[in-house]
Amino acid sequence: MKISARNVIKGTIKAIEIGPVNAEVIIEVAPSLEMTSIITKNSCEKLGLAKGKEVYAVVKASNVMIGTE
Amino acid sequence: MKISARNVIKGTIKAIEIGPVNAEVIIEVAPSLEMTSIITKNSCEKLGLAKGKEVYAVVKASNVMIGTE
Amino acid sequence: MKISARNVIKGTIKAIEIGPVNAEVIIEVAPSLEMTSIITKNSCEKLGLAKGKEVYAVVKASNVMIGTE
Amino acid sequence: MKISARNVIKGTIKAIEIGPVNAEVIIEVAPSLEMTSIITKNSCEKLGLAKGKEVYAVVKASNVMIGTE
Amino acid sequence: MKISARNVIKGTIKAIEIGPVNAEVIIEVAPSLEMTSIITKNSCEKLGLAKGKEVYAVVKASNVMIGTE
Amino acid sequence: MKISARNVIKGTIKAIEIGPVNAEVIIEVAPSLEMTSIITKNSCEKLGLAKGKEVYAVVKASNVMIGTE
Repeated sequence: MKISARNVIKGTIKAIEIGPVNAEVIIEVAPSLEMTSIITKNSCEKLGLAKGKEVYAVVKASNVMIGTE
Repeated sequence: MKISARNVIKGTIKAIEIGPVNAEVIIEVAPSLEMTSIITKNSCEKLGLAKGKEVYAVVKASNVMIGTE
Repeated sequence: MKISARNVIKGTIKAIEIGPVNAEVIIEVAPSLEMTSIITKNSCEKLGLAKGKEVYAVVKASNVMIGTE
Repeated sequence: MKISARNVIKGTIKAIEIGPVNAEVIIEVAPSLEMTSIITKNSCEKLGLAKGKEVYAVVKASNVMIGTE
Repeated sequence: MKISARNVIKGTIKAIEIGPVNAEVIIEVAPSLEMTSIITKNSCEKLGLAKGKEVYAVVKASNVMIGTE
Repeated sequence: MKISARNVIKGTIKAIEIGPVNAEVIIEVAPSLEMTSIITKNSCEKLGLAKGKEVYAVVKASNVMIGTE
């Protein structure tokens, strides 16, 4: 499936912390650049996510804010 | 301000396309890694966004999905 | 790509209204059941969306609220 | 209350899984078409959600992505 | 309809700016406290929104971030 | 950091309920006006959130819906 989300960023899972409903997944998308995702525990199992697996971080453009210093 | 969003990613604005209500902003966050943001035109002006400006792409962890091949 | 989003619903595009930055897409997912999506105009073009095309409406579970009467 | 969300889809709760903060609710919105929602445990209790109850799945259009094969 | 969204905040519309697809609506929810909403132009018309109308700003708890100084 | 989110609302934390992955935070933003936020437990700890602390509730305009009676 191709998806309309404008941000589809390749990376590798560094860590997964699983709770009763949700799971937190840390993905390394570039050297010293990590992204954090919260998905359901069920999605985590359905996709067979595990440390070291190659995945994509997917973010809809309307969910990206911009900060300035 | 420090923010609870888990993803605060430094980058440089490569392009801005401004519409009547929203604007699309392209941010380079690593070599050959760009993120796209849709924010309001008013935020764009309030923050003084322009091509070349250093900014942060900010994404709440619950808005990051995971894709696999 | 398989995606962590829990809601991946097959349907057919009934109408597209394109603005300068965003586009509104109406998808029929079951008889007399339509879903409405706002995506960027650029995504719309990148995916080659058009009336009659078979697509999936994709929604992350944390973006589904529940209403009661 | 009427709501601006463009997707207000009638259905019946098939299953609820309650965690310490969030709950996962499965709603059947058409024959063999289910939607999954993550809401707070507190909302779940406030609305009196239970298996078999008629509810609406409510999704803002900007949270609906589109996938293609 | 009662909704699972934890934030349902009464207010009065102060301004509406309508674009080709989306509209920006400013709502005063307390003295000198305004909230800004982006919804589709179609929702704006469907709900008959206009300056001075009493409305509710509705936000899902998972879409509220926290900032600190 | 200044942020593109249009809604940055000052308040005081009234209560925090921490789960294994997420936390629910109640913020008083005006007399008898509370907002509820779900963030990760890790963000909660990183920001040192506690009852009585002054914080900002931050919401992107595209995540604010409008309800009418």
